[in-house]
Amino acid sequence: MAESVKTIRDTDDEARLLARRLVRGARYAAIGVLEPGTGFPFTSRVLTGTDTDGSPVILISALSAHTTALTADPRASLLFGEPGKGDPLAHPRITLRTRALRIAREDERHGQLRERFIRRHPKAALYADFPDFAFFRMVPESASLNGGFGKAYALEAGDLIIRSPAIAGLAAMETGAIEHMNTDHSEAADAYAQAYARSKRTGWTICGIDCAGLDLLNGDELIRIEFDAPLHDSAQLRAKLVEMSRFASQK
Amino acid sequence: MAESVKTIRDTDDEARLLARRLVRGARYAAIGVLEPGTGFPFTSRVLTGTDTDGSPVILISALSAHTTALTADPRASLLFGEPGKGDPLAHPRITLRTRALRIAREDERHGQLRERFIRRHPKAALYADFPDFAFFRMVPESASLNGGFGKAYALEAGDLIIRSPAIAGLAAMETGAIEHMNTDHSEAADAYAQAYARSKRTGWTICGIDCAGLDLLNGDELIRIEFDAPLHDSAQLRAKLVEMSRFASQK
Repeated sequence: MAESVKTIRDTDDEARLLARRLVRGARYAAIGVLEPGTGFPFTSRVLTGTDTDGSPVILISALSAHTTALTADPRASLLFGEPGKGDPLAHPRITLRTRALRIAREDERHGQLRERFIRRHPKAALYADFPDFAFFRMVPESASLNGGFGKAYALEAGDLIIRSPAIAGLAAMETGAIEHMNTDHSEAADAYAQAYARSKRTGWTICGIDCAGLDLLNGDELIRIEFDAPLHDSAQLRAKLVEMSRFASQK
Repeated sequence: MAESVKTIRDTDDEARLLARRLVRGARYAAIGVLEPGTGFPFTSRVLTGTDTDGSPVILISALSAHTTALTADPRASLLFGEPGKGDPLAHPRITLRTRALRIAREDERHGQLRERFIRRHPKAALYADFPDFAFFRMVPESASLNGGFGKAYALEAGDLIIRSPAIAGLAAMETGAIEHMNTDHSEAADAYAQAYARSKRTGWTICGIDCAGLDLLNGDELIRIEFDAPLHDSAQLRAKLVEMSRFASQK
């Protein structure tokens, strides 16, 4: 084991998929910031969502220690991946090195980011519009993935950021597409959760759609389903969802 | 809520008890360190135990990023307290600002720290003696406790460190006392877990005893029971355990 810890494995598609699922399927993370004054690396907990390009998004109060810190120095890390049963170190986790970018309320992206975040964290609607709260995009620079003992990988920003000419187009239709799916095809989310994530629960709804995949929500539980490859045209979404439903019905 | 986030409440005994339980009852934490080279606050996951004075203890590999970082700069934070069901921000957590102190294998405290850590993390016995692994005591300087929305407290080192003239004496008899209890009074741990932490499970064992309380282990689950006040003489331990058993039998 000592030997293997040293070895950084070559990043392959399996590692990339695991990394993306950990980040995009998370509800919260441990954030590390540089505390002004003391210089301590200060770690605390934040709710997380993602922007449509895969960058993590957080919603924090100007009165909190992390906002003060990020305003002074935008460097931050985010640790995703929670231990379940058994050895906490056997569970995969990933640390992203990011730079925090405040999204002003006047920013044209603000409304869409806000909707997407609140669909993922319905209770955040209670305080998201308080004047001291703000969204930050956490732009990834690199990451360290630990898939369990001896499974260490170094990832680049490109492994985590979604690249597609369809990002803006799909973002513009995201809310409408989700409402349509959850209303007119409400059985689809359960079928996806079952087929793609072996969920035995019912009651799933879609809470996010981007070029690289779907986010499904069910109370406290979130499932990230990654498409085989990112959509390159927002018009492909319908066919993709139909194809997934067909796959799910054959399972 | 915006208002209340700003307010740091006065630290009272209830906050101190919560803080101690979060730290002393943890199996793992998110550690924040200063990454050499990049200067990023880097957050990752570590197994944690405690020294008999309440300081957190971690066991990490020299090949890991955190050991390199802590050797260059001993400042680190530790985030304890895991979200359970419901809103992740409604669950209490605490961040300790600490300085990391490497415990050399030749250190007279090493053997006892090692035994205590391995009782808490039996699987760590597989690698604790690898030449690249080392224990670090994480000496607390201060802490930020968040007991849930609007319940923020600033704690000092003195709120987290156990002060008693009996620490060394009790540490010297810890292993023997635990073996005696788990062998000759094996029903006691279940009774304590039931009476003091409302556990419905059986199969508990004692994995740690210090002047301020007991640690109970049951597979993945850990319970910290704090005494009303720290023992000031190691000879008080027996009476304290008997008193607790009596209390438990009356519940």
